[in-house]
Amino acid sequence: MKTLKIASIPGDGVGKEIMPEAIRVMEKVADVHGGLKFDFEEFPYSCDYYLKHGAMMPEDGMDRLSQFDSVFLGAVGDASKVPDHISLWGLLLKIRQEFQQEINIRPAKLLKGINSKLANPQDFDIVVVRENSEGEYSSIGGRIFHDDNEIAIQNNVFSKRATKQAMNIAFDLASKRKGLVTSATKSNGIFHAMPFWDEIFDEISAKHPNIKSESKHIDALAAYFITHPHELDVVVGSNLFGDILSDVGAAIMGSIGVAPSANLNLNGKYPSMFEPVHGSAPDIVGKGIANPIGQIWTAKMLLEFNGEANIAEHLLKVIEAVTADGYQTPDLGGKYKMTEVTDEIINRLGK
Amino acid sequence: MKTLKIASIPGDGVGKEIMPEAIRVMEKVADVHGGLKFDFEEFPYSCDYYLKHGAMMPEDGMDRLSQFDSVFLGAVGDASKVPDHISLWGLLLKIRQEFQQEINIRPAKLLKGINSKLANPQDFDIVVVRENSEGEYSSIGGRIFHDDNEIAIQNNVFSKRATKQAMNIAFDLASKRKGLVTSATKSNGIFHAMPFWDEIFDEISAKHPNIKSESKHIDALAAYFITHPHELDVVVGSNLFGDILSDVGAAIMGSIGVAPSANLNLNGKYPSMFEPVHGSAPDIVGKGIANPIGQIWTAKMLLEFNGEANIAEHLLKVIEAVTADGYQTPDLGGKYKMTEVTDEIINRLGK
Ligand SMILES: CC(C)[C@H](C(=O)O)[C@@H](O)C(=O)O
Ligand SMILES: CC(C)[C@H](C(=O)O)[C@@H](O)C(=O)O
Repeated sequence: MKTLKIASIPGDGVGKEIMPEAIRVMEKVADVHGGLKFDFEEFPYSCDYYLKHGAMMPEDGMDRLSQFDSVFLGAVGDASKVPDHISLWGLLLKIRQEFQQEINIRPAKLLKGINSKLANPQDFDIVVVRENSEGEYSSIGGRIFHDDNEIAIQNNVFSKRATKQAMNIAFDLASKRKGLVTSATKSNGIFHAMPFWDEIFDEISAKHPNIKSESKHIDALAAYFITHPHELDVVVGSNLFGDILSDVGAAIMGSIGVAPSANLNLNGKYPSMFEPVHGSAPDIVGKGIANPIGQIWTAKMLLEFNGEANIAEHLLKVIEAVTADGYQTPDLGGKYKMTEVTDEIINRLGK
Repeated sequence: MKTLKIASIPGDGVGKEIMPEAIRVMEKVADVHGGLKFDFEEFPYSCDYYLKHGAMMPEDGMDRLSQFDSVFLGAVGDASKVPDHISLWGLLLKIRQEFQQEINIRPAKLLKGINSKLANPQDFDIVVVRENSEGEYSSIGGRIFHDDNEIAIQNNVFSKRATKQAMNIAFDLASKRKGLVTSATKSNGIFHAMPFWDEIFDEISAKHPNIKSESKHIDALAAYFITHPHELDVVVGSNLFGDILSDVGAAIMGSIGVAPSANLNLNGKYPSMFEPVHGSAPDIVGKGIANPIGQIWTAKMLLEFNGEANIAEHLLKVIEAVTADGYQTPDLGGKYKMTEVTDEIINRLGK
């Protein structure tokens, strides 16, 4: 019996609602397939935790989490309780950076039965590969001067090592897919970082003569997700550009409530972390209408990256059968509650 | 007789095709209304100019342009000839920054008869107010180390003065419209600059108790343009966020070929500059299918900001009558050529 030790962090808002749903599904799918068992431990790290303890996690929080095979996260952040940059840099971004989860993988494809927000979406199937450790997400910088003279400086830091790594992963992925890598750049407007990004992209592209490659400016590319999503395959972007494009990708999928993501540690030193793309959505908390699909599809990615590709595929098929038959929450235009969608997935997992 | 002295810079690619179209329209609309005359002078500054002269403009280029009431620009940049950061920082961004065009105004609303790319666009009418002089568009930074250790550092610079100014303009605009300002932020991920941005936004919001205000993270906001565009009114963003959102706005309008923009100098020391949102689109050059609407709608903004609100409104009405009757280029799904669309606009301007 293989046991996966999972640290679950429900976090804030709807994170606390959808996490138990995904766990129900994971227990069921493991049960159905046999040979796999989950050992979950829940960590209350969140804005509420901060209000009580003055920190998003205890001092040994990272040590504790490092003992697990994977971290499974709901959603973090609730600006009505704790300023976002405190809560996120104290938990989500801290884990991504300290656990060297340098790659974030975010699929954007339309599930059967879901109405895209696009008039004529055709059949898109995109994966966004996001550099996840540096770039625009940096705590270097600060402020100077007072009153109306004040200025803030923010340093973006791009390393060749991490940039190359993200691009190599994008080319690897494309070689198993449609064979196209699109690089999100802004070398016309961002003077140092983006020409650097482009040079590295050209270098890596040249090493992959069998993969088509192209560069598009982030503004035009975000528009292209809306006008020509079916022409894209793998998209590689910096930390911020990957962030933006994956939300645009989620919107064209019909709702940001469905999109999954995987923060991958590649050197084996620390766990990877899996979390849906959406946030904590405080406005719908307590209504029972949060969409559980984002978290459950994220569980599918957790299975996949823990060596359980078959179980993962089975789970995704069942998710899609359920959306195809119209079991959808209100964000997708459906009339079902969160638990009803989950129940239907569990029913169809078999046995 | 009022004379407006206009420096026209067709630039690269389709810029050279659509510029004469817009000028034809402007001559006609002035003629029809009487009392207004244009004095155009064309400047060949472009990537071709660079290939010949080794610079995007001569040393006294800015001096020359400063003699005009307004600059009217087509599109700049053609990476097959000159690296984008060279061509743009040598012309477009140089003009914006040196002529202190600190505000960029970019409307996004659906023209009658045009099919949005959205399934159910309802009736959106958004104005993006973009800070246009600083932020992520900075030439401060550089590179260090060699080979795989190389890093690039890019400094984003945000001043309270320019940030406040953009926000004040957004609130002013909103007071004449639906009364809502949405701030594009990323204070959960971008550690110094964006919490600074939010603080200033809260300060300005507090001074406008009659205007509703809200902050949304750029990723979620880009998605919101797709899922809920009709809920937005005025959106204020940094240089980069305004750039991205206005292209997303253009995409939901049906094509980036229609979107106009105005780079405003507010202190009266230098001319303002008017240019469509789209780029030089080298792929469609010579086919006669470039969409002239972006440039012509931009001419409408030029008229408006040069004190000719009535003529401007008339022109926009005629543009919309023409799109409503199906005179549309292929990017909008139409079968008309660029010149046919322009001809129809000119016909309907009267006399
Ligand atoms: C060409 C480029 C530098 C420019 C920008 O980023 O501002 C363009 O995208 C725009 O929106 O006007
Ligand atoms: C919450 C925020 C810091 C985070 C990010 O920007 O990475 C989120 O938007 C995401 O995409 O995971």
